Amino acid sequence: MCAKPAIVPKYYRISREIIERIRSGELRPGMRVPSENELIRRYAISNTTARKVLHEVEAGGWCIRIKGKGTFVQRSVHRSATRILAFTRNMREAGYVPSTRVLDARLVEAGYEATINGRRYVMNGPVYKIHRLRFADEIPMMIEVRYISTAFCPGIETRDFTESLYEIYERDYGLHLVEIHQMLSTVMLDTGTQRFFDLTGPVPAFRVEGVTFCGKEMILEMEDSVYRGDRYRFSVSARPDRNNPSG
Amino acid sequence: MCAKPAIVPKYYRISREIIERIRSGELRPGMRVPSENELIRRYAISNTTARKVLHEVEAGGWCIRIKGKGTFVQRSVHRSATRILAFTRNMREAGYVPSTRVLDARLVEAGYEATINGRRYVMNGPVYKIHRLRFADEIPMMIEVRYISTAFCPGIETRDFTESLYEIYERDYGLHLVEIHQMLSTVMLDTGTQRFFDLTGPVPAFRVEGVTFCGKEMILEMEDSVYRGDRYRFSVSARPDRNNPSG
Repeated sequence: MCAKPAIVPKYYRISREIIERIRSGELRPGMRVPSENELIRRYAISNTTARKVLHEVEAGGWCIRIKGKGTFVQRSVHRSATRILAFTRNMREAGYVPSTRVLDARLVEAGYEATINGRRYVMNGPVYKIHRLRFADEIPMMIEVRYISTAFCPGIETRDFTESLYEIYERDYGLHLVEIHQMLSTVMLDTGTQRFFDLTGPVPAFRVEGVTFCGKEMILEMEDSVYRGDRYRFSVSARPDRNNPSG
Repeated sequence: MCAKPAIVPKYYRISREIIERIRSGELRPGMRVPSENELIRRYAISNTTARKVLHEVEAGGWCIRIKGKGTFVQRSVHRSATRILAFTRNMREAGYVPSTRVLDARLVEAGYEATINGRRYVMNGPVYKIHRLRFADEIPMMIEVRYISTAFCPGIETRDFTESLYEIYERDYGLHLVEIHQMLSTVMLDTGTQRFFDLTGPVPAFRVEGVTFCGKEMILEMEDSVYRGDRYRFSVSARPDRNNPSG
């Protein structure tokens, strides 16, 4: 009833081959993946199996089927919403080469505040605001705005912001993240943001607003980022809450 | 540095008043909320405080500011992504009256399968497919498709599907949910779905694909639902993963 059978079915093996061609860059985003008929000829499989192959590749977010046009390579990334995971490591684990372009970085005297999941969080100024565009294999994936506590991270403005901030917090300040709260909403990208992502049409995106603690009631940073919806999936796991049965 | 100060600031108190008027239904979705100038006159407050009031109401998802037009009531709902929580209870906790319309319910002999967070899950047939539209205070909030194991829930087709399925599983079958995996993506609503939500323009939405276990490797149900993006926020919490430091 579950994945990982002892014997790997043919459709699964072929789907891995195609995914490997996408990952290796042989099949690039926007290119057509083999059609059902091409798969039938090439692998001598039934049309049911060919359909399953394409469905598998599609379901993994590696391609997208456009009615009447074919199936095209589409690389999307899964991000765990319940695991504290830096972008850099997330991308490396997914097999991508991460990179970062700093768009802006400045001190904000007024501080920052936002309501996340119905609760108001306030960071007193000055906070250090960093605006970055982040890439996977040179594809722009997300635009991130982070507000960093200068109380916990004095001198943060001298750091190299193409690095992982989480690494800077741990290595340079000895700070450990203890908890992250985030709120996910959906937005349409405005035209300015679309340009950063090399997109023309209207595309939905995830907006992620978050607050990160490095101790009880100690706000280390807050975030207001946009993840492109055509490339990101958020994964979530839930277990029963003993104090709140599921009913 | 955090919420819940000992002394409640004026802007916060006034924002709660407005939110209460929205919750009570005195201010209905689409209606204008008091403008900055109206707040200044009515409460004898500064324009800074009035701005903070509106920002607070807006940040909580209770209203939306439309440039040059004003601020309008907009009720949105937070759903925890890390807590197993039925729609019915989620809505009740948020102060809404939940209701359900069954669009379709039928046995699917072929079963159901999907890839969620990169892993393939298979339910052997027959499965019972239920298609429902779910409301909060008569506002359509989500369209849900669920595939239920007839092995674990024999005779499920005779139940009243306007009820919470989680309640049916527990009460009628003695089944307890042990784990849920979900994948969140963003989609544009197709025109058919828009009609269900009484929407005309293009609106982004969350697509939630999930699998629910009632024991180790025991799939109780799978889901493929659409939550309207203008009304939903997903909330997420993460703590450090001991096996995978954040770096």
